[in-house]
Amino acid sequence: MKLYFSPGACSLGIHVILEEIGAPYEAVPTLLKEGAQHKPDFQAINPKGKVPTLTRDDGTALTEWPAIAFWLANSNPGSGLWPAALEEQTQALSLMDYVCGTIHPQGFSRLFNQARFAPSEADAPKVIEQGRGIAEKGFAVIEKQWAGGDWLLPSGYSVADPALFFVAYWAVKRMSMTLPPKVAAHFARMLARPAVQRALAAEGLEA
Amino acid sequence: MKLYFSPGACSLGIHVILEEIGAPYEAVPTLLKEGAQHKPDFQAINPKGKVPTLTRDDGTALTEWPAIAFWLANSNPGSGLWPAALEEQTQALSLMDYVCGTIHPQGFSRLFNQARFAPSEADAPKVIEQGRGIAEKGFAVIEKQWAGGDWLLPSGYSVADPALFFVAYWAVKRMSMTLPPKVAAHFARMLARPAVQRALAAEGLEA
Repeated sequence: MKLYFSPGACSLGIHVILEEIGAPYEAVPTLLKEGAQHKPDFQAINPKGKVPTLTRDDGTALTEWPAIAFWLANSNPGSGLWPAALEEQTQALSLMDYVCGTIHPQGFSRLFNQARFAPSEADAPKVIEQGRGIAEKGFAVIEKQWAGGDWLLPSGYSVADPALFFVAYWAVKRMSMTLPPKVAAHFARMLARPAVQRALAAEGLEA
Repeated sequence: MKLYFSPGACSLGIHVILEEIGAPYEAVPTLLKEGAQHKPDFQAINPKGKVPTLTRDDGTALTEWPAIAFWLANSNPGSGLWPAALEEQTQALSLMDYVCGTIHPQGFSRLFNQARFAPSEADAPKVIEQGRGIAEKGFAVIEKQWAGGDWLLPSGYSVADPALFFVAYWAVKRMSMTLPPKVAAHFARMLARPAVQRALAAEGLEA
């Protein structure tokens, strides 16, 4: 397997999952800041031009964070990363989709790249305000609906936890945001996991 | 079960899935144009303020399109809407996530509500151009990666098909866009399904 990642991008969460599983893989840097995702060699692998992209040993590529996480967890059942019960499987998907479909692309993307939202540079502060509001609401919703204990789901650690982790990492390390209490405690627990520490080190990021 | 929907919103896809399954449900209009999703009675059900929201007979709510589709298909296995093989399950998720995380919120949302993206009204044409580009690229990627025959997956009709349907419906009926050939043929096949016709009629939409 090869994980195409950009340091500190949402691919960090899949990097964590791969480290949790412990199966051999190669991490291939694909630097978004240098536009590597738009270059022909990467477009041939994933025409969406997005990380994370995971290629399997047969050469086929998987795209979309929740789908990659689902496949990794289910093709490595010993990892215990996919819950056993339908209800918790559904909640895991719902959490991953909320992070990957709302908190990231509608919230943090506004904080990272205002020009993609408002063509007029003078509007950048408004875009930032809007993005911060969407991200903060996202964490507040997750805090309010917290069903688990130490981890997001009552059944324990799952693929949903690294999803929350990558946006919490952005909030704390890149945006100096204050997380609500349960999300903040979850972030601290994630940072203490050896798999998270290995993924951060591999991407050259602060733990 | 109750489906909270707004006529012609992305909830249309879940409406189709419910009609395919044939289990009893109530469809509860939640008019986005009137801001019903922000009102206290709906916020108590789903604090995200989004449709589709599905409540179950025990009163608990499910949110996020792919998660609702996953639960409906898996809790009604006789429907055959969830593929049997891990690889096709993964592709179904990937397709749903691409529609629900990119083509809809990054593409069509720009075509439906420019003010949410660009604070300056004068920038609206640029937002429309960008949204159209994202939507068109989305359909082009799906066309290029088409792995199935009549339906998106080689295993046959699945929850992924109503996901593609609702954005194709927007493209054709609301935006007069031209779909690439396989996506266009898929759209025509969807319109011919009795479940799709029943969902459209229930929402007061043109078939």
